[in-house]
Amino acid sequence: MTERSRVKRGRKKASYDRTLVNSIIDEAWVCNIGVSVDGQALVQPSSHWRVGDELFVHGSVKNGLFQQVIKGQTACITLCILDGLVFARSAYEHSVNFRSIVLFGKGRLVEEPTEKRAVLDALLDKYSAGRSQEARPPTEKEMRVTAVFAFPIEEVSAKVSSGGPTDLPEDLELDIWSGVKPVSNVIGELIPD
Amino acid sequence: MTERSRVKRGRKKASYDRTLVNSIIDEAWVCNIGVSVDGQALVQPSSHWRVGDELFVHGSVKNGLFQQVIKGQTACITLCILDGLVFARSAYEHSVNFRSIVLFGKGRLVEEPTEKRAVLDALLDKYSAGRSQEARPPTEKEMRVTAVFAFPIEEVSAKVSSGGPTDLPEDLELDIWSGVKPVSNVIGELIPD
Repeated sequence: MTERSRVKRGRKKASYDRTLVNSIIDEAWVCNIGVSVDGQALVQPSSHWRVGDELFVHGSVKNGLFQQVIKGQTACITLCILDGLVFARSAYEHSVNFRSIVLFGKGRLVEEPTEKRAVLDALLDKYSAGRSQEARPPTEKEMRVTAVFAFPIEEVSAKVSSGGPTDLPEDLELDIWSGVKPVSNVIGELIPD
Repeated sequence: MTERSRVKRGRKKASYDRTLVNSIIDEAWVCNIGVSVDGQALVQPSSHWRVGDELFVHGSVKNGLFQQVIKGQTACITLCILDGLVFARSAYEHSVNFRSIVLFGKGRLVEEPTEKRAVLDALLDKYSAGRSQEARPPTEKEMRVTAVFAFPIEEVSAKVSSGGPTDLPEDLELDIWSGVKPVSNVIGELIPD
């Protein structure tokens, strides 16, 4: 944790626990990567995955945002899992339950062939356990056009909001329905090609 | 659409259709807002909602990121809905189906009381139709500590990836399972407080 990654607002929801951080990264499917280009923020959604203490993203080596990462700029990566809609009795206390991550880091271009293949296999195994052993392996050309970046999971914070509404004592007696509608990301059964 | 918001990579998936853009913004619950602070990107997840041609976010007026918005910096806002995991026969063609938005815009601080109340009501009605008429209305103080920003939905692009895997012709005969596992965000029944 650094001053940059320290949570300033909503500190009661903040955590720097690495096991929690990793679990959120692993459960989420999409992150957002931000860089600064001439003083203008540029953010893009991206798939991501984790191996050990690094978060990985991949894409075309021609991607403009990745060019900033290659130049050594520290990126800001976020991800957020929505867990619930919180209905309070008061309009003001309505909120969402969530688990989110904000990570700052410089991206390392993964070039060594054995490592690159291993981390891409890990991405497939995130889709479905053992998938890397089932799919037709990548060709040399397919490996070459895929850029893979590793970001250290070090300068990172999590925020977690959970539980029910926190109405003021004087609102608790109001005859207004309240509670939580849980939200979940459901992966359905395979629709064969 | 401007040069900045023109999709450079994956152009076949790009769209600038406003109806499509609005539908993605409306369905998503969380966006990511990025600004640049001294050349460093700073991105934060945030709830958002839409009224007309503007995307709204709210939070504490003390939020450091919002300070950049108040100063007039153009923010970059993204959101992404995951629709499916695409299992190809080849490792390389694995992908995700998604609908995403990248929006550039300056945020307008919503201060006029009638407008501010109306857009906050619209947020509650996104949670549940008619909720703004059920909940205990905000007090003047609750209104004052909530900062609301409106971003014009103008400099915006969408990307949509859908359908099944696109394996190479020579891979189609391989005896490897393939297809799409649909992913959906499910809002459950209320768990009363």
